[in-house]
Amino acid sequence: MESLVEQMHRFFDPKSVAVVGASRKITKAGHVIFKNFADNKRRGIFRGELYPVNPHEEFILAFRCYPSITEIIGEVELVIIVVPAKVVPQIMREAAVKGVKAAVIISAGFSEIGNHKLEEQVTTIAKEAGIRVLGPNCLGVYDSHTGVDMLFLPETKVLTTGDEVVATPRPMAGHMAVVTQSGAFGASALDYLAGKQLGVSKFVSFGNKSDIDESEMLSYLLHDEKTWVILMYAESVEAGREFMEVAREITKKKPIVALKVGKTNAGARAALSHTGAIAGSDSIYNAAFTQVGVVRAGDMEEFFDTGKALALQPPAVGNNIAVVTDAGGPAIMAVDECELKGIKVKEFSAETVQKFEELKRDGTIPSFATNLNPLDLTGSATSEMFEQGTRIVLDDPEVHGVIVIGLHHVPALEEDFVDRIADLSKSYSKPVVACDIGETEMALYIRSRFDKFGIPAYTTPEDAARAMAALVNYGLHLKRSGSFEQYLESFQKRVKT
Amino acid sequence: MESLVEQMHRFFDPKSVAVVGASRKITKAGHVIFKNFADNKRRGIFRGELYPVNPHEEFILAFRCYPSITEIIGEVELVIIVVPAKVVPQIMREAAVKGVKAAVIISAGFSEIGNHKLEEQVTTIAKEAGIRVLGPNCLGVYDSHTGVDMLFLPETKVLTTGDEVVATPRPMAGHMAVVTQSGAFGASALDYLAGKQLGVSKFVSFGNKSDIDESEMLSYLLHDEKTWVILMYAESVEAGREFMEVAREITKKKPIVALKVGKTNAGARAALSHTGAIAGSDSIYNAAFTQVGVVRAGDMEEFFDTGKALALQPPAVGNNIAVVTDAGGPAIMAVDECELKGIKVKEFSAETVQKFEELKRDGTIPSFATNLNPLDLTGSATSEMFEQGTRIVLDDPEVHGVIVIGLHHVPALEEDFVDRIADLSKSYSKPVVACDIGETEMALYIRSRFDKFGIPAYTTPEDAARAMAALVNYGLHLKRSGSFEQYLESFQKRVKT
Repeated sequence: MESLVEQMHRFFDPKSVAVVGASRKITKAGHVIFKNFADNKRRGIFRGELYPVNPHEEFILAFRCYPSITEIIGEVELVIIVVPAKVVPQIMREAAVKGVKAAVIISAGFSEIGNHKLEEQVTTIAKEAGIRVLGPNCLGVYDSHTGVDMLFLPETKVLTTGDEVVATPRPMAGHMAVVTQSGAFGASALDYLAGKQLGVSKFVSFGNKSDIDESEMLSYLLHDEKTWVILMYAESVEAGREFMEVAREITKKKPIVALKVGKTNAGARAALSHTGAIAGSDSIYNAAFTQVGVVRAGDMEEFFDTGKALALQPPAVGNNIAVVTDAGGPAIMAVDECELKGIKVKEFSAETVQKFEELKRDGTIPSFATNLNPLDLTGSATSEMFEQGTRIVLDDPEVHGVIVIGLHHVPALEEDFVDRIADLSKSYSKPVVACDIGETEMALYIRSRFDKFGIPAYTTPEDAARAMAALVNYGLHLKRSGSFEQYLESFQKRVKT
Repeated sequence: MESLVEQMHRFFDPKSVAVVGASRKITKAGHVIFKNFADNKRRGIFRGELYPVNPHEEFILAFRCYPSITEIIGEVELVIIVVPAKVVPQIMREAAVKGVKAAVIISAGFSEIGNHKLEEQVTTIAKEAGIRVLGPNCLGVYDSHTGVDMLFLPETKVLTTGDEVVATPRPMAGHMAVVTQSGAFGASALDYLAGKQLGVSKFVSFGNKSDIDESEMLSYLLHDEKTWVILMYAESVEAGREFMEVAREITKKKPIVALKVGKTNAGARAALSHTGAIAGSDSIYNAAFTQVGVVRAGDMEEFFDTGKALALQPPAVGNNIAVVTDAGGPAIMAVDECELKGIKVKEFSAETVQKFEELKRDGTIPSFATNLNPLDLTGSATSEMFEQGTRIVLDDPEVHGVIVIGLHHVPALEEDFVDRIADLSKSYSKPVVACDIGETEMALYIRSRFDKFGIPAYTTPEDAARAMAALVNYGLHLKRSGSFEQYLESFQKRVKT
């Protein structure tokens, strides 16, 4: 029998694809999806065979069009269905005849609006024919590496002024997989990730989960080498026991970050009317996630911030963090947030303080720098001070991670403090995250330079603290599950390549 | 005797200024500050007399330089002192002889590094001479309307590549006053506000608060017509009783948003070593702020987000909120956050639901839209649907505010939904806030268009919900203090002009 990985692989790297409902009308979803594939095939990114299916057309974008799947001569591994809901059962029957093994049903109009019978009809056909189904009512799959792109939302829009602007961009290739129950959230996530220059390996929008659910998708992503971190948006998690078993295995090797919504009574009611999801008690989700090592994000921003931290930095081996800064106030904000998240910012050891005092005596750092944790280099800070101070902190065996809050505004600080800290951190296996505040040129430059060198950088001290908390909590879970060393080894191997 | 307002006014709109420690060396703070004033005087923004004071120079930037304050012939209302700490007492004595009434001591090296005696010496001289003092160890004042600009942090920096980039920008003129104990936070706030295009009326960095403290500054800002909202960053609040009395009066007329750090034990310890601030029990601060109507922000982002909301929108008269959306998932995130903040998102009344059902029957909104609150117009949403739906929601007397989550990604939605909602909201006195998710062109366009029309727009559903929570909580405080109607009237008057 086929493995789950083989089954799932067809959705992400099919040897042949038929788009049923492909269209020449550019406003149609069937046009956008077919064009995505056709463009990627021309560019050599998508390497599979491609077939448009539409009984009313002869050619679409210079591809010969077929009246039905069964008329296609070659093999069809995957069908993408973009026709009205009521026609879908007929298409699925044809797919069964053709021997198709994977179907993505983009079309809406099933259980999400109460048409449970129609959805059952489709799943029954699929089950009998051995067709795995993603959807219905979903955005499908986007894979940055294989050129599979089922996103039908317009990549650009034309404003009333006549200007064409980017509306739903594709993020750059990277190592975060995004798995979402909500298509709308998924679309906006792509926009957010693209703008923040966060790289994505695979994007999957589930919709109604009539067949494939998050547990199977997660199992598949465990085996995907391009995926280092899994970001999962969910309104409900079906098959809780199965999910927990799967998640428990995955989190030994890859972090899963969950944005589980419907936390409150009113939110759960909204989720129920949105996807029919029975959200269940939030405290049960919390307990379950903690038990199996899923990192839960408090809100949307923390969701992506955490993903970035886990993709770029190793987990922490303990829960005591140091803050190195040139900005006393923002450092306090980070310390507050650490402690609120259960992370310690203990006073430095006498030995470490002694080292700072030596730096003061030889004039390397200002005599009035405070050095109990945070290490505050003050507005006189230079790159040299940041490097020396951070080195001492990283050398302290009681410090398990470092938050660098290097506000660029102070007069003597040059941008090479970023390079120095990045270089330095390579000699340690402790996580380092950074913060610079501001939204104009220099702040954007500093943050993206940190990111480029693999130190995740954030806009606010609290965001940086939350990211560090995730690295601590994931590290503690790895230790509890006896997989810390193994994870660290594979982490270090992959960031080197 | 002079009123407090008259005393404070000298710091923001002085008829004459002497910069002691003005310098020709461009790396010196004394150069930057003097140049700010000289430039603004040439541009006609700063209209006072300007005197550089430095015994070693004859001219600075073509201004005739004086060896000491006492040599200046005309009156000197304000001195700005940028000389080493140990020289400051002598300068203050000269200021006393000259009859100066206001001094900003930018210089550091006083109580913040343990030199309490030196600071006492300065305050004693000032008190005897009737000189009000801002600082020491501060960034001083920036006033977007009068051209007073004491910020010595470099507006641009030159990278090692040779490129000159904006490092510490000045935000645009507007109606938020920023009052900060931390200079570093202040500098980064300017950068953040400039980049987010949030307008600032006055910026004040206090430093050590040797004389003027937040209570006096707040009292002054109450009378400043350009200031609609006061944002206050604090590590400690001295003279608690006085602060509460002042804040109680101000919040009847202007919102105060507080970012009070040092919330946790470790944070309080960090604050102690930063500014010597004894943070005190956080729960006492919470109780005090609530009692006098100060809106407390949970973190840095909420601080600015809340300020924007209170500057642009009226407070809510009750605590039940509606969500109108085209994106089910993100709407749940907003509902969750509302409920976590103590705000209700109750099911719509039968009458309101009836109106939606009529829109469904006549085909104005999709038959499968969910309409219990949130109103979810689904991925089929158009501008027309947003307008009609929002109108019905605003007409519902049980709804006290509306969060519009209009993700631009859905195919048929055009950007004029922003204009329509903005126009519509003008006929109601209920607060409206908006969210669009994304960081690329269209998202930035939609959010800044909302902002431009006075609807504060946010990047995440949770941010929008937190902003709405502030509008609700401030509204409830105004009602409790019997000042809701009066505030609403003056709010409506000022947004019209």
